[in-house]
Amino acid sequence: MCQLLGMNCNVPTDICFSFSGFRKRGGETDVHRDGWGIGFFEGKGSRVFLDPEPSAHSVLAELVRSYPIRSLNVIAHIRKATEGDVRLENTHPFLRELWGRHWLFAHNGHLPDFRPPLKGIMTPVGNTDSEWLFCWILEKLRCQFGTRTPSRNDLFSALRKLTLTFAEHGISNFLLSNGDVLVAHCSTHLSYIVRQAPFGEAHLADEDMSVDFRELTKPADRVAVITSLPLTDNEAWVDMRPGSLWMFCDGNIYDQCDTIPSPYKTMADLATATAEGSRF
Amino acid sequence: MCQLLGMNCNVPTDICFSFSGFRKRGGETDVHRDGWGIGFFEGKGSRVFLDPEPSAHSVLAELVRSYPIRSLNVIAHIRKATEGDVRLENTHPFLRELWGRHWLFAHNGHLPDFRPPLKGIMTPVGNTDSEWLFCWILEKLRCQFGTRTPSRNDLFSALRKLTLTFAEHGISNFLLSNGDVLVAHCSTHLSYIVRQAPFGEAHLADEDMSVDFRELTKPADRVAVITSLPLTDNEAWVDMRPGSLWMFCDGNIYDQCDTIPSPYKTMADLATATAEGSRF
Repeated sequence: MCQLLGMNCNVPTDICFSFSGFRKRGGETDVHRDGWGIGFFEGKGSRVFLDPEPSAHSVLAELVRSYPIRSLNVIAHIRKATEGDVRLENTHPFLRELWGRHWLFAHNGHLPDFRPPLKGIMTPVGNTDSEWLFCWILEKLRCQFGTRTPSRNDLFSALRKLTLTFAEHGISNFLLSNGDVLVAHCSTHLSYIVRQAPFGEAHLADEDMSVDFRELTKPADRVAVITSLPLTDNEAWVDMRPGSLWMFCDGNIYDQCDTIPSPYKTMADLATATAEGSRF
Repeated sequence: MCQLLGMNCNVPTDICFSFSGFRKRGGETDVHRDGWGIGFFEGKGSRVFLDPEPSAHSVLAELVRSYPIRSLNVIAHIRKATEGDVRLENTHPFLRELWGRHWLFAHNGHLPDFRPPLKGIMTPVGNTDSEWLFCWILEKLRCQFGTRTPSRNDLFSALRKLTLTFAEHGISNFLLSNGDVLVAHCSTHLSYIVRQAPFGEAHLADEDMSVDFRELTKPADRVAVITSLPLTDNEAWVDMRPGSLWMFCDGNIYDQCDTIPSPYKTMADLATATAEGSRF
């Protein structure tokens, strides 16, 4: 299965520490060798670094790890391909523009029988179920709200309804951001932590590296980090419940609600069900 | 004024040599200090590196110069801001998706009174005339062809008609690519070279660096390079005539036609006319 990493902050913050550990899982401490990507929002602009190479050994990942890009919203992904070849166009996060904002999307899971028709407002470039899902979500938002940008509350409510449509069809952990908020769906597993004063020390789970946030932060700073598996081994990460949707804003939880947990606990369960034809 | 660099090839080729000289113009051999960007197509996928820092001194530009990304179509841009702040969202090339392909666009010039209404199919994220123009072009293509991808010839013909609409409104040198072809509009100045067998040696104009293409190429390789000012000082670059539109494919000229030359030879002429209100 792929892994996700998201960050949402109230002041522009770099993700170098978290990404140091995360990238190791792309071919060193874990098996997600089929490419990686990371997208940063800076103001209304965004930059996305994509690489079909394993992140643990990528020149580009080394640059991202060592070059501090300060951002309010970040989405990263390391891929273990389930559907779609290992190619640049199948590498997450995917980017589209809607209502004059960039939108980034990364997906961890598989929705083997969910290919709803698209109207041609957004069209996938690659051949993953993930990009199809992203295009479908943005098309539905565009059709519901027209050319008018919805409020955060209306956006969250619309995303909940859309998520209920596909949550039962497979595994649909995802991160979505428009640079203003970061939305996270926990279908099987996802954890988060909100780091705020009083700050402490954190130690990476995937490499022997620590950081003392007291030395790097101001008292009002607040950062939410969301990830498939906790990145540090000495902090209190919160497991999100399967079947829950979260909106983060300014480094904190803005809203949350129930959706539907995946009927499959793991990708192996899903693969077995697909092979047996029990649900598909 | 900004500067453009484009490359279109018949085999995936890296742009490290050309970019070595081009990046120097962003703050070292020339004044284009207000950010830079480069986009590469690899298969149907694309990756775009954007930086609001001057390219001559950018860590990211050093990576792009030294890390060979092999591509059939590349568009790069170094910016001297005329309209729109120096911010990431105003950094070229701009990216959108249409008909399941990425499109990249970079503009050198200024269209001060050309802000046609947009329908909301594509909306600018930043506040440059360049991104507005790009959104307008793609919207018009989408409206003309619907959800059906046009042939190269139909696309070229449509782009000519659109270019005739805005060519008189200012300076509109641009590069546009969908990963299949690269389209170049010469409004005031743009040069190209087609490198093919027999290959020779090339020496950069902006730094003392040479490359012998005989050592790096196969006999059937063909590469078209398009740029605002010739990158090498010992090759026969062809000046495109002001008021001409070109389509490059497989490293060669696919088609060309007349448009309308800019009424202004330089940005200074345009600025004077704008200040005098003679045309606006």
